[in-house]
Parts: sequence; structure tokens; C-alpha cells
Amino acid sequence: MNPEIASKIADAVDAAFDRQLEFTHELIQYPSLRGRELAIQDRLLQEMSDRGLATDRWRIDAEDIEDHPGFGPMTVPYDEDFNVVGTYTPPETRGRSLILQGHVDVVPTGPEENWTRPPFETYVQDGWLYGRGAGDMKAGLAANFFAFDAIRAAGYAPAAPVCFQSVVEEESTGNGALSALLRGYTADAVLIPEPEENALVRANVGVIWFTVRVEGKPTHVREMAEGFNAFDATNDVIADLRRLEAEWNARKDEQPDFDRVEHPINFNVGLIKGGDWPSSVPAWCEISVRAAIYPGVPADQAWAEIQEFVRQAAIDRHGSEARLPTLKRSGFFAEGYRLEEDGAAESLLAETHQQVFGAPLETFTTPGYLDGRVYTNYGNMPTLTYGPRSLDIHAFDERVHVESVRNITKTIALFIAQWCELDPLP
Amino acid sequence: MNPEIASKIADAVDAAFDRQLEFTHELIQYPSLRGRELAIQDRLLQEMSDRGLATDRWRIDAEDIEDHPGFGPMTVPYDEDFNVVGTYTPPETRGRSLILQGHVDVVPTGPEENWTRPPFETYVQDGWLYGRGAGDMKAGLAANFFAFDAIRAAGYAPAAPVCFQSVVEEESTGNGALSALLRGYTADAVLIPEPEENALVRANVGVIWFTVRVEGKPTHVREMAEGFNAFDATNDVIADLRRLEAEWNARKDEQPDFDRVEHPINFNVGLIKGGDWPSSVPAWCEISVRAAIYPGVPADQAWAEIQEFVRQAAIDRHGSEARLPTLKRSGFFAEGYRLEEDGAAESLLAETHQQVFGAPLETFTTPGYLDGRVYTNYGNMPTLTYGPRSLDIHAFDERVHVESVRNITKTIALFIAQWCELDPLP
Repeated sequence: MNPEIASKIADAVDAAFDRQLEFTHELIQYPSLRGRELAIQDRLLQEMSDRGLATDRWRIDAEDIEDHPGFGPMTVPYDEDFNVVGTYTPPETRGRSLILQGHVDVVPTGPEENWTRPPFETYVQDGWLYGRGAGDMKAGLAANFFAFDAIRAAGYAPAAPVCFQSVVEEESTGNGALSALLRGYTADAVLIPEPEENALVRANVGVIWFTVRVEGKPTHVREMAEGFNAFDATNDVIADLRRLEAEWNARKDEQPDFDRVEHPINFNVGLIKGGDWPSSVPAWCEISVRAAIYPGVPADQAWAEIQEFVRQAAIDRHGSEARLPTLKRSGFFAEGYRLEEDGAAESLLAETHQQVFGAPLETFTTPGYLDGRVYTNYGNMPTLTYGPRSLDIHAFDERVHVESVRNITKTIALFIAQWCELDPLP
Repeated sequence: MNPEIASKIADAVDAAFDRQLEFTHELIQYPSLRGRELAIQDRLLQEMSDRGLATDRWRIDAEDIEDHPGFGPMTVPYDEDFNVVGTYTPPETRGRSLILQGHVDVVPTGPEENWTRPPFETYVQDGWLYGRGAGDMKAGLAANFFAFDAIRAAGYAPAAPVCFQSVVEEESTGNGALSALLRGYTADAVLIPEPEENALVRANVGVIWFTVRVEGKPTHVREMAEGFNAFDATNDVIADLRRLEAEWNARKDEQPDFDRVEHPINFNVGLIKGGDWPSSVPAWCEISVRAAIYPGVPADQAWAEIQEFVRQAAIDRHGSEARLPTLKRSGFFAEGYRLEEDGAAESLLAETHQQVFGAPLETFTTPGYLDGRVYTNYGNMPTLTYGPRSLDIHAFDERVHVESVRNITKTIALFIAQWCELDPLP
């Protein structure tokens, strides 16, 4: 594109960057944990409205989405789960349309005393902005808006529709993104600035969440040698799952994008709960498991394999079906996705990235869930998951690299400018 | 004693036994779980009042008991924890005074679907009365009252004070019994009809409850190989505790009453809880442990040994103090006790037991906590823990043997008659 216009847009990002940072602080300060996403969504709706976008706000309704193969079973009510979308429509469309997506939900903080400062009190230190959600993905949410602003500050407007989508539940089901797709939002490309180390996601795994519950006959502790111990039985199941995980990792060479990923398939036992009384041998125990699956493997096929493996292992161990654990789906039920190589959107992103970073765009494969699977697998839209450097997302002292956010914002702005094309502002 | 009087008293037990059973059903139907003991206590207070006893009802106040070495740290508020005591005082005392104790609290039911019928819906089948608390120890609570009633129905009254004590918190701290002792209730003997297989407890273990918490640095599951996993760390601690348990069991030959008990020291991990999110490597995990200690070993000595063992094992494992688990007392902090052989109370119980059961009284050593430790260790009172046959206390389908309850009631009645001596009713 015209280097003068490009440079005007980049300068506009710089000029507004202090305000962008301030807004990012503000977004992080919303403790938008699962089920507590309403306040920030209404704040973002206001942002959309202030920018003159046509707004849409709706509650995620399970009835609308539960028959879709990409639906993840809900384990919490969705009373306060609203998506908000703001759409910019040019007077006349010349370029290609674009969805800029972000999710507002953040994962739990864990014990707050393990944070250097409270997780929702933001601060910048040594070039990093700290806070739960800083990287994943409040910085990206803010970048979407400020990239758009920069184009207008430079005196232009996109010549194709740009749709700002702020969704919920990315961290537990992906039902927020699915609901947006099924509401009818489509475009010629989707860009999601998740924290991806200034790189583009080529492929990612699918994710299934499930619970495993074991139950047995407890006893008074004075006869504990005779009783069933649910914690021991749970450790047996965890060992079974580890074996299946190893089997799946051994299949990585069949996967075009995963052969260089050391351990693509992680089974994580993230929650455990069991027993009723210190002096009773525990009668039950339940774990929540997150399992990854290769892109191309349907979730129901993987799920059937997990269930059968655990079942058969229990039968082998006990010699009967007497002690079968109960497995239930409890969230993500998502296939992975793969971004096809050398598409137009990717080529353009590579170009704008090179312009801003002075280095080629790298692509990589990531072993974590991404909403990109919704738009890629079910919307047939090229989806660019591409965003800033971060550290310790999902951990303590999560942080995002401030200069990386600045550059990512410039790349997005230049991408909008060329993907959508530009009209001069009147 | 006069066989005619004895037989009149035994007959009186039989005559009222249907009503006794009915009352036992009623007591079991109170779901008097920890913290829900108030309703049944008020019901029992009414029973005491109806029998013309002088009643006393007080809330357990930690301030009154927390400096006592037998105090167990509270983990729940005692807002609704009341002891009730009813005292019979004869016009003139000739015989020896007696405390008849029972506790109203029951342990949790565990998953109700594992019960044949709901745990607080009582029923009799094949000679067993079913329900949570049937054996431990609603049947014993009722037996105390009906044993006393039988004496009066036979035309007599005890010639010494008889004190009915209904206490709370036997299953988690023993603070109920401790509070009764410190309120000043003493007697020449104590009888507690816990479910003891028609036998007398010679000795029992002490019990300590504590929690162990491990914490570490979690990570996004995509980097899980680098993170600390709290569940794995907890399994390490459990293995440490198993080693200490084995060491303590190996010391059983030094214990006069425990050499014949196969596994006197049980460490039970009864509750587990950890992690915040299925897709995060768990940052923390906490277990609740019940450990047994030999009688004669002070609780604080055992507690120091546990703490040091776990601490040293963690240092050995990690090569530093970086990952020390946190141990906290969380309930029982109780020494065991030993009933001295051939005391007057035991001799008399042996005699009345032989009369009723036609077989000698057996004594045994039990690896579970008993309130008897309060009266024996701190009240210097001979304490007879002796009660009916039961099955699956602390488990599913808890039940007590009906004919055993009848005979135990007769034994208690005859014991009262001879221990307290009798006056004819006017």
C-alpha cells in the first residue's frame, strides 16, 4: 500500500497508544471470570456505540446451539452470558469484510497470595503489563478497537464491513463464538489477537473436557483395610489416562503440523474433589480432565475412544464391570483446526507483519484450544489467530509485552486498511 | 443382686422394648449431622424433663475449653452446638453415682444413592435396624433412658445420682464431652453405649485430624511439563504419611493392648480438594487426614512427629525447603485411653453382662476415637464403653442389631441397679 498512508496509520497508533494502554488496564481490571462477564460486555458495547457502530447484544441460548457438533455441554447457567457485536458498514463496499474477535472471559486466578500483586490490580513493570487476562486476551480486545481508530485518525475509513465481536466462554466451551457464528455473523476473514508471541497459529488441537467419578463402599476407618478407597481408585484412572495420552502423542508423526511439537497431546487433571469426612475412607472422588485431540479428529470419535479406554482398563484391573468409573462431558467438545497455507488473508498478514516488525511472520502449532476452530471448521472462513507476546497466561503474574501490543495493533490496522481497502473520510 | 428384682427389671425392659425401638427410630430420623444437632438435643432435653430430671443446656463455648490439652481445634462455628444433661438425684445417696453418656452427632451419609433406602428413613429387616446413626449411637442414647425407666417400672429408683449426658461433636473433636467434664459433671463411673459388639473397650487410640496443603506455580496446560502439579505433590505427601503409618504400626509390640491388633494405626486421607480450572495445571491441593496414635502418647508429641516427618521428606525430595507443605490441625487432637483392669465398675459390668448374655464379658482394643478418653484421662473416672452389635457404621446401610440393643439395655439397667443401689419407690 501507499507507504505514506501506512505511515500515517502507524503514527496514529502511536499517537493514541497511551489511551490504548489505559483502556487495556481498565479492561483487565474487570474480574471477568466465567459467569461474571456481563459488566465488561456492557462496557464494550458502549465503546462500540461511541464509535457509531451498529450494535447487537444477545444472551447465549443453549437451545440455539446445542444441536451443533461444535457445542460444548454447559455446566453453569448462562443467565448473564451475553455476546456483544458492533458492526461498521461503509456507505459502499469495495474491499473484503472482516471480523475482529476477542473473548472477555478469563481463567481463575488461583490462590491470590501467589501473585506478586492482586491479579486484577494492573501495573506495568520492565515493559510488561501485569494482570489476569492481560495477555489472554484483554490486550487483544483493546487492540481491535484502537487499530480501527487509527485508520480513522489517519483520515480514512474501511471500505468493507468490519465486525467487532466480543464473546464469552472461550475458556470453557467456545459456545460464545459458536453462538456468534450461528447468529449469522460471517466475513471474508476473521482475526483474533490471542496471545501468540507475534506469530500466526497454523494449527491447534481440539479440546474435550470431562469428569471422571469413582464410587465405592466406604467403611469406618477402623476397618479401612477392607474398604474401597476412592482416592486410590482415582489414581488408577489417572494412570490409565496417562497411558492413553502417551498413545496419542505417539501418533503425532501422522499429523502434518505436530511432528515438531514435543508433546502435543496433554491430558490435564485440573480439579479434584472427593470424600465427605476425615475419618471415613473416601467413598467417592471426582476429577475434571482436559484432553487435547488432533485437528481432523472429530470430538465424538475421541470421546468414544477415551470412554472405551477407561472402561476397558477398569475391567482389566478389577476383572469385572463392578467398578466402572462414570465419565461425563463437562465443557469443551471441540475439534482442532488448521489454517490452510498461503491463503489471501495469511499472505496479507505476512506482508503487514513484515512491514511493522521488520521480520517475517512465523507460523506455529499450538496445543491449546482456540475459538478459531469455530470459524474455520464451521464457517469456512480463513481465521488468523495472531497476537502479542505474553507470559504466564493461566498462571500467576500473567503479563503482556507492551511494545508487542503496540506493534500488533499496527499490524492489525494495516491489515484492515488493505483487506477492507480504504475510503477517505469526508 | 436379688434375682427376683433383677428379673423384674429385665422384664420391664422387655415390656417397654417396642416403645424403646420406636423412640430409637425417631432419634435416627433426626439428621443430626455436625452442626445440625440442635433439634435432637432439644428433643432429648424434653425426654429428661418428662422424667423429672434436673436439666442443664449450654452452648459449647470455645473460650471455656480451648486451653485444655484435650481440646480439638474447631473448624466450624459452634452457634448451634448445645450439650444437654439431665440429672436424677435421689432423696438420699447410698450407692455410687453414674454418668450415662451418648453423642447425638452422626457422620455424613456419603452419596445417598449408595444406600438401599434413604439414610434417615429407618426400617428393620432381618433383625437389624437401619439408618445413619443407628449404631453410632442413637440406639445407645435411647438405651440409657429405657434402662433407667425399667428400674422405675420395676418399682425402684437408683439410690445415687444418675446423670444423662447427651453431647455433640464426638465425631470430629470430642469437645462436647470435654465441655461436659469442664462444666463440672463427675461421677464414680461413666458408661457410654457406643456400638462395641456387646463387648467392653479396654483401650483405644487417640486421634489427630489435620490438613495438608501443597501449593506451587501452575501453568497454562500447553506448557504443563514445566509446571508444578499439586496433585502429584499431594500423592508424594500421602506416600510419606503411609511410611510414617508403617513406622508407627511397627511399634505396636511396645503397646500392651495393641500387640494383637493387626493394624492399630490407620492414617486416613478422608477428603481431597484441589485445582481451580480443568485446563490449568492444579496450583494447590488440600487433603484432610485422620491419624491414630497409641494411648499414652500425648497428642502434641505425635503432632510434632508428623510435622517433622512430612517436612523432612519434602526437603529430601526437593533438596530444599522451597516446597514445604502446610500442615494444620483441624479437629481431633486427642490422646487415646486405657481402662485399668479389674476395677469395680468393670467387675460389676462383667457380672451383669454374664447375667443377661449368659457369656463372659469380652474386652478388646479398638483403633477408633472414643469420648471415653475425656473422662478417663482428665476426669480420672472409670469409663465403660460398651454397647450393641452394629454393621457399617460410617458406611452405607449402617445398622444395629435389635436383640443386641435389648440385651445391652438390660445389662445397663442391672448395672445401674447394683452400682447405684436401689430404693423402693414410695
